[in-house]
Amino acid sequence: MAYELHYWPTIQGRGEFVRLALEAAGAPYVDVARGRVSQGQGMAAMQQYLQDESMPRPPFAAPFLVDGKLAVAQTAAILLYLGPRLSLVGKSEADRLWTHQIQLTIADLVTEVHDTHHPVGTSLYYEDQKPEARRRAQDLLKNRVPKFLAWFEAILQRNPRNAGKDVPHLVGARLSYADLSLFQLVEGLCYAFPKGAGRALKMAPQVLALHAGVQRNRPVAAYLASERRIPFNEQGIFRRYPELDR
Amino acid sequence: MAYELHYWPTIQGRGEFVRLALEAAGAPYVDVARGRVSQGQGMAAMQQYLQDESMPRPPFAAPFLVDGKLAVAQTAAILLYLGPRLSLVGKSEADRLWTHQIQLTIADLVTEVHDTHHPVGTSLYYEDQKPEARRRAQDLLKNRVPKFLAWFEAILQRNPRNAGKDVPHLVGARLSYADLSLFQLVEGLCYAFPKGAGRALKMAPQVLALHAGVQRNRPVAAYLASERRIPFNEQGIFRRYPELDR
Repeated sequence: MAYELHYWPTIQGRGEFVRLALEAAGAPYVDVARGRVSQGQGMAAMQQYLQDESMPRPPFAAPFLVDGKLAVAQTAAILLYLGPRLSLVGKSEADRLWTHQIQLTIADLVTEVHDTHHPVGTSLYYEDQKPEARRRAQDLLKNRVPKFLAWFEAILQRNPRNAGKDVPHLVGARLSYADLSLFQLVEGLCYAFPKGAGRALKMAPQVLALHAGVQRNRPVAAYLASERRIPFNEQGIFRRYPELDR
Repeated sequence: MAYELHYWPTIQGRGEFVRLALEAAGAPYVDVARGRVSQGQGMAAMQQYLQDESMPRPPFAAPFLVDGKLAVAQTAAILLYLGPRLSLVGKSEADRLWTHQIQLTIADLVTEVHDTHHPVGTSLYYEDQKPEARRRAQDLLKNRVPKFLAWFEAILQRNPRNAGKDVPHLVGARLSYADLSLFQLVEGLCYAFPKGAGRALKMAPQVLALHAGVQRNRPVAAYLASERRIPFNEQGIFRRYPELDR
């Protein structure tokens, strides 16, 4: 049976990390909120899960994945669940924990990126917190992005299985969901902050090599060229506000 | 062999979620950075892990747990690892995922609480972002804390194993690491925002009952009364700045 992914239908957002894993693995899935109401899909089908008071284990928020009777929310937990099923994680407990740990660190930076346009409150509009957003973005690009990229670069350099390879991987010698997520993080940073992130990425050649490798991965490339890939826009996490990119 | 917990020695911070799990289970552990330099402990021992360039899988940040050859960072990943070993999670994959999903949701709110005193940048002082902090805290207390507490309350109410019980649990009928973390979240909220969080908690009687139950748990109570429990202070995540509590 196809996996059901439930996420906001007009943005990449956090759902994109799950979409990329499903697409890279060629797994059958339905992007429910983007589907047709006549087929029981669309936004209403997603909202039902969030509002159904009889559901014993309701998601706090989208994205969530429905696989038969199981519903799993939280991007990193979804990938923890999907990893072994999609062969996007190693077999040992140590590899699985390490992959998850990297994913959680990527998620931390994603949250910090979101905070650049919502530093004062997620319930307020960007237009109502522009000066604060400028300060926060400056801190992100000057301090935080370089710090995170340095760590990703270090772990790619220290992975012994990357020696002599053109395309490095974060864990072991095979593609993992963390590689896909780091690709997406780089994509998002380059969209939102072409100047600031471009500067920081010059110091992270292994991260760029990973990004290029994932981009050439056949199912990923086919997905990126398809209509299933929603373009970046200013409703998602990675927003191009030139005033924030310095 | 005793677990090694590595975390900043003068604050509860994110390390406290791990300390509570180790303490509740009566597990042998060393709080490394609080230990004696003469015994190879102290801050230098922790910093060595963060700076050792020969380490193939280095932590991005504290807290991290060392168990023999394995080092695991990211609070939620540490608890994912410890859960089964400390009997603080159910046996089924569904229970483990659900417990982890709750933990990640608690972690999200912890990050939002941290952002109330650092809305513009983690690299800046609180004193340099006070007006922004007031706006962010107002949004947190008005919108975010009630939303999260409503979800915790709902999942406690919907857990069929809580029917007729004085002390509810988040997952199944036994204490899990998520219960301990929700206890700590409530403790922190009540310390930082006695007015604002107190108001919100009135709407969450099951959450309060869980908090009271964990507080009475014998090993937890012994820990809370000991010197091992660092008091809350204004260097941690939960800070009492009366100007933010409205």
